[in-house]
Amino acid sequence: MKHLIQKIGILTGGGDCPGLNAAIRAVAKSAILDHQIKVIGIKDGFQGLIENRTRQLDYEDVSGILSLGGTILGTSNKANPFKWPEIRDARITYSDVSEIVINNYRELGLDCLFCIGGDGTLTVAQKFKEKGLNIIAIPKTIDNDLSGTDRTFGFDTAVFNATEAIDKIHTTAESHHRVMVVETMGRYAGWIALHSGLAGGGDIILIPEIPYDYDCLIAKVKERSQKGKKYSIVVVAEGAKPKGGQAIVKKVVETSPDPIRLGGIGLMLAEEIERRTELESRVTVLGHLLRGGTPTAFDRVLATRYGAKAIELATEGKFGLMVCLHGQEIASIPIEEAISQLKLVSPSSSLVRVAKSVGTCFGDE
Amino acid sequence: MKHLIQKIGILTGGGDCPGLNAAIRAVAKSAILDHQIKVIGIKDGFQGLIENRTRQLDYEDVSGILSLGGTILGTSNKANPFKWPEIRDARITYSDVSEIVINNYRELGLDCLFCIGGDGTLTVAQKFKEKGLNIIAIPKTIDNDLSGTDRTFGFDTAVFNATEAIDKIHTTAESHHRVMVVETMGRYAGWIALHSGLAGGGDIILIPEIPYDYDCLIAKVKERSQKGKKYSIVVVAEGAKPKGGQAIVKKVVETSPDPIRLGGIGLMLAEEIERRTELESRVTVLGHLLRGGTPTAFDRVLATRYGAKAIELATEGKFGLMVCLHGQEIASIPIEEAISQLKLVSPSSSLVRVAKSVGTCFGDE
Amino acid sequence: MKHLIQKIGILTGGGDCPGLNAAIRAVAKSAILDHQIKVIGIKDGFQGLIENRTRQLDYEDVSGILSLGGTILGTSNKANPFKWPEIRDARITYSDVSEIVINNYRELGLDCLFCIGGDGTLTVAQKFKEKGLNIIAIPKTIDNDLSGTDRTFGFDTAVFNATEAIDKIHTTAESHHRVMVVETMGRYAGWIALHSGLAGGGDIILIPEIPYDYDCLIAKVKERSQKGKKYSIVVVAEGAKPKGGQAIVKKVVETSPDPIRLGGIGLMLAEEIERRTELESRVTVLGHLLRGGTPTAFDRVLATRYGAKAIELATEGKFGLMVCLHGQEIASIPIEEAISQLKLVSPSSSLVRVAKSVGTCFGDE
Amino acid sequence: MKHLIQKIGILTGGGDCPGLNAAIRAVAKSAILDHQIKVIGIKDGFQGLIENRTRQLDYEDVSGILSLGGTILGTSNKANPFKWPEIRDARITYSDVSEIVINNYRELGLDCLFCIGGDGTLTVAQKFKEKGLNIIAIPKTIDNDLSGTDRTFGFDTAVFNATEAIDKIHTTAESHHRVMVVETMGRYAGWIALHSGLAGGGDIILIPEIPYDYDCLIAKVKERSQKGKKYSIVVVAEGAKPKGGQAIVKKVVETSPDPIRLGGIGLMLAEEIERRTELESRVTVLGHLLRGGTPTAFDRVLATRYGAKAIELATEGKFGLMVCLHGQEIASIPIEEAISQLKLVSPSSSLVRVAKSVGTCFGDE
Repeated sequence: MKHLIQKIGILTGGGDCPGLNAAIRAVAKSAILDHQIKVIGIKDGFQGLIENRTRQLDYEDVSGILSLGGTILGTSNKANPFKWPEIRDARITYSDVSEIVINNYRELGLDCLFCIGGDGTLTVAQKFKEKGLNIIAIPKTIDNDLSGTDRTFGFDTAVFNATEAIDKIHTTAESHHRVMVVETMGRYAGWIALHSGLAGGGDIILIPEIPYDYDCLIAKVKERSQKGKKYSIVVVAEGAKPKGGQAIVKKVVETSPDPIRLGGIGLMLAEEIERRTELESRVTVLGHLLRGGTPTAFDRVLATRYGAKAIELATEGKFGLMVCLHGQEIASIPIEEAISQLKLVSPSSSLVRVAKSVGTCFGDE
Repeated sequence: MKHLIQKIGILTGGGDCPGLNAAIRAVAKSAILDHQIKVIGIKDGFQGLIENRTRQLDYEDVSGILSLGGTILGTSNKANPFKWPEIRDARITYSDVSEIVINNYRELGLDCLFCIGGDGTLTVAQKFKEKGLNIIAIPKTIDNDLSGTDRTFGFDTAVFNATEAIDKIHTTAESHHRVMVVETMGRYAGWIALHSGLAGGGDIILIPEIPYDYDCLIAKVKERSQKGKKYSIVVVAEGAKPKGGQAIVKKVVETSPDPIRLGGIGLMLAEEIERRTELESRVTVLGHLLRGGTPTAFDRVLATRYGAKAIELATEGKFGLMVCLHGQEIASIPIEEAISQLKLVSPSSSLVRVAKSVGTCFGDE
Repeated sequence: MKHLIQKIGILTGGGDCPGLNAAIRAVAKSAILDHQIKVIGIKDGFQGLIENRTRQLDYEDVSGILSLGGTILGTSNKANPFKWPEIRDARITYSDVSEIVINNYRELGLDCLFCIGGDGTLTVAQKFKEKGLNIIAIPKTIDNDLSGTDRTFGFDTAVFNATEAIDKIHTTAESHHRVMVVETMGRYAGWIALHSGLAGGGDIILIPEIPYDYDCLIAKVKERSQKGKKYSIVVVAEGAKPKGGQAIVKKVVETSPDPIRLGGIGLMLAEEIERRTELESRVTVLGHLLRGGTPTAFDRVLATRYGAKAIELATEGKFGLMVCLHGQEIASIPIEEAISQLKLVSPSSSLVRVAKSVGTCFGDE
Repeated sequence: MKHLIQKIGILTGGGDCPGLNAAIRAVAKSAILDHQIKVIGIKDGFQGLIENRTRQLDYEDVSGILSLGGTILGTSNKANPFKWPEIRDARITYSDVSEIVINNYRELGLDCLFCIGGDGTLTVAQKFKEKGLNIIAIPKTIDNDLSGTDRTFGFDTAVFNATEAIDKIHTTAESHHRVMVVETMGRYAGWIALHSGLAGGGDIILIPEIPYDYDCLIAKVKERSQKGKKYSIVVVAEGAKPKGGQAIVKKVVETSPDPIRLGGIGLMLAEEIERRTELESRVTVLGHLLRGGTPTAFDRVLATRYGAKAIELATEGKFGLMVCLHGQEIASIPIEEAISQLKLVSPSSSLVRVAKSVGTCFGDE
């Protein structure tokens, strides 16, 4: 028996991610075309549900957005209703804010709330599930570090963009006999650095999961130089750290409410390599370039499949679930499974072994 | 116990495919770095093994080729030693030619032959396996129609390129109020048309596996036009065919030994749509643009994983196998399983259902 | 003294061209921000001015369109008010239709009409200028064949796209030892084929302005083959023709009101080369792929400069002019100068000589 | 009468620049094909001429390099023979080193030396011209700041790459309601920032030639925010400076012989804007991404024309000249004219006025 769904809400939370619009479009088109469900777009993630800023999404509103980067709904990565800063309104307490969300959900007449987000957004979504809302989650993160799904959309595009950047840097490295350090996103998980390093032919790949030894990577650069390759490409995740050491805290502006950071580990590595090898070294930080712009075909297809599956779950009355990719099939798991822990690169995984077998150094041996 | 492999041969057969060089590089680097195996590159597929045209591949030879399209070894898609045209040398019979290959394999001192190819090349490879050669196969085809593996490398790039083309054509369709027909490769399997049609927002997708009805797709174009969308994007695989009809044979030059074909079904569709809807229609044929140029990061990683796995199999003495992708893992299956039948799109697959749920017409209902 | 302009109309005519939206945006933003001029967008070229289909363009309407291909106003390439088919309405004669345009211009209260188009649109614009309307023309055509300006926007993008395609085809040509024929747009002028052929390293470039000799180009292919380069890239403009011969008429559907054409000269060349050299030959037709998608930075800057200059002319009361590029500066010339004759490639131009000096064959010697 | 040239040398100096290989190829192909001139490639700029590291360039060596970034000859940006660090060899004085170059030029039997470079390389080239060597210069720099030529190759690609990056960042800015600061190369000249800012729709463009006022640009961001556009794109050249202030010195590693720098002005701006507007701000530094990778079609054509023209000059016995672009034609000027002063953006130029007329703020009014 089909669950009677007449009106749904949809929001996007967390950092920008290629494929958000494709997912919104798939949810809305499936809902409207297949089930005559009314779709309410919630602006700027949970913040829009706190402040009751919404707009109805008609078929026309989601037409033509498939290839667009960003999210037509807007997003917010600091709008956790369970950690709402009291300072914004002294009369409102934390629990009040989550109640506001629940109230607004009821008053909007929503039968289900679709939350597109990563670890942070889904943790909030799970709490509302526990408070009785009908929630369906769609996983997105360029970092690919969400458990329970083989892939999140956004990751393929991020790796594509990073690889394209490494390709560009390669010619300069070779022409100038330089060590080029490319710093990618990835504070806890090295997926982007590993995949783009492998795809871009990085000589050294450093990721948070495999602490590196300076002597080891310097030796690799020197060995290449002695063989006549007076250049090397180092791909490093921002969260990579030396053996026994800490991840490099980026330059932050302490006085700022939202610290601006730029190039920590990459800069440090370039300096150290230059000092110890006497090869010119340069660093390039691939920050927002990874998460902007049009999604790859892969991510558009994945986001579309997620969106359609999410509507299928809702119409079957299956809530509290996150859609996910298992092999070639779209499935679903309880949201809480996905957020229980980050999915990290295993140092003994086949992908790491493959990288080593084609000569990549991880700085660990 | 490791099998003692000291010298291997490697060849690429069949149509061009992004990722061939990445696979060659991975095989050669893994062989040389990890196992001190000598690598013999065989030129132009099996033709090079018939004519004994080879070159040794050193580390330097495969350095810097990861991002290049094409194959440094050359390929041939008509060099089947079991169907060798007698005319080339009247004294040589079919079976002789395959014996020449076996002789050359022995004389080159090969311990194993790595065959990178699609259905055709692998069918030949299997026959040599049956004749006692140590064969390991690596699957490639932009069409993704090989059984036994979730993906072949080349497919992701072909879909990416097709999607990029559809994106370009979209703006013209809209500005000119035109029906734009995009014909993709895919004689028997509709994977490229289905994925790129889904990623590019095609309004109509026609594939060989789902025979179409003219009235149905004309109705779709007219319905859109009546709603104010005086344009439509039709993505059609070259092998698509009407219900009860045949695939359109392309224009061929009968007198030519190798017929040149250009735009069959796409052209016919554009004409028919224009005739019956009075909307201007245009066709674009995406042939060689799909299979050329630099591979996507996805295909580079997949090809690299395949290459490294292939060497692993060889050193373990496991022959007669094809490496393959199962979910996120690289595995292997007997070559004969892969070539037993083409992997086609199931009309009831979730991907087709997803496409329908976001409004795509397959011309079948 | 400034001319008092309070309200302008703007239309785009002719084939799709990257940069149309950039030009519309520049006209509208300059008009609104600098001069508080009201901007009326006319839909689908002159057809919208016949049928009085317009919309006001506010600042918001042109925000975010800079990078989009196509035209937000729509276009039409058969809406010549001076050749309006009587059949559409038997009571309306040719001259009536142009009078309708003039009437609508007056009734809309336009002080000036901005016409963005190529040869066809500008010829119509000039006639309305002669009938007393205030006209300013902005040149666009991917073919770059408009006189009086060094460059039209759209051309740089078309050449970029064609070159990218040739790059892709190169790797296949080399891997397969094939002759790859790439047919570009260019019925009368060979600019796209010449520039993209030069940029893509075409071995043979055939353009309408330099009739070719078959023996000559076959000799080139054979000479390369004998030197071990068993592949060649032939870039041919659709209007190229043999010495003493005619341009190849493409396949047309006679019964269709708007003939659909696909691959004439390219296909013929591939067949001929294959027949006479015994090298496999393939053809790729780059039609709509050249004119769709996001404009290059070059074209965006050029279109923006044209748009701003056009408003400057209008506010100075200078009408009947076309903006143009002379060296690095934007200037203006009478529209009639621009449409008097097509700008063709001179066979003795330095660009042709440069191509020959790096080894390109034009089939003429 | 033709000057008898039998053997030439060619070197590339200074920073990496897309189009170097296209220029090398054009010089070598024109020399070999048209004039049977022998071409000696000099490695790593003038350093190779000091150390006598050269290789002959045959036709095959320059085949297939047209689309490659970097330079097959290698480059060096610290190899000024007139400022050779004594420390490298205490017995060699400055003047000795330039004499070594002259000796090597003679001993190699060169009739002419082709120097492809920017301001630095050409300054050295001019000195050797004054010492009697036959020099021909080919201008390259992504910064476009060389006098005497309308364009240097490399610039179009740098602007293209920067614009592509800004496009990507745009979607994130909008989705997150952020101010995104994009820092481009350009220490003295703002050409890249101006062109890419114009092409990418930057709301604020800051260049060295137009000192900015903080209040002014903060006002612009706030004004946009009040109109509902809670995001802005700021494109800033690395050498931009506040009115009455200095350019921001980047973070440098004092102890390093070759300081590593990353993100000066961009970071500072983002911090200041965030502090004063309370809008989240982020910075992206586009360093080496601008100068790597395949050149645009425009730059390939320009570099090819330069190379062919350079050989033409040599065979006519015209030395001491730099090839240049004047309008649509390739011409030549004395090298000393090109290096006399940098070509800067004039604050009153039409390009700046155009940018202002479409609403761009330069922080100056």
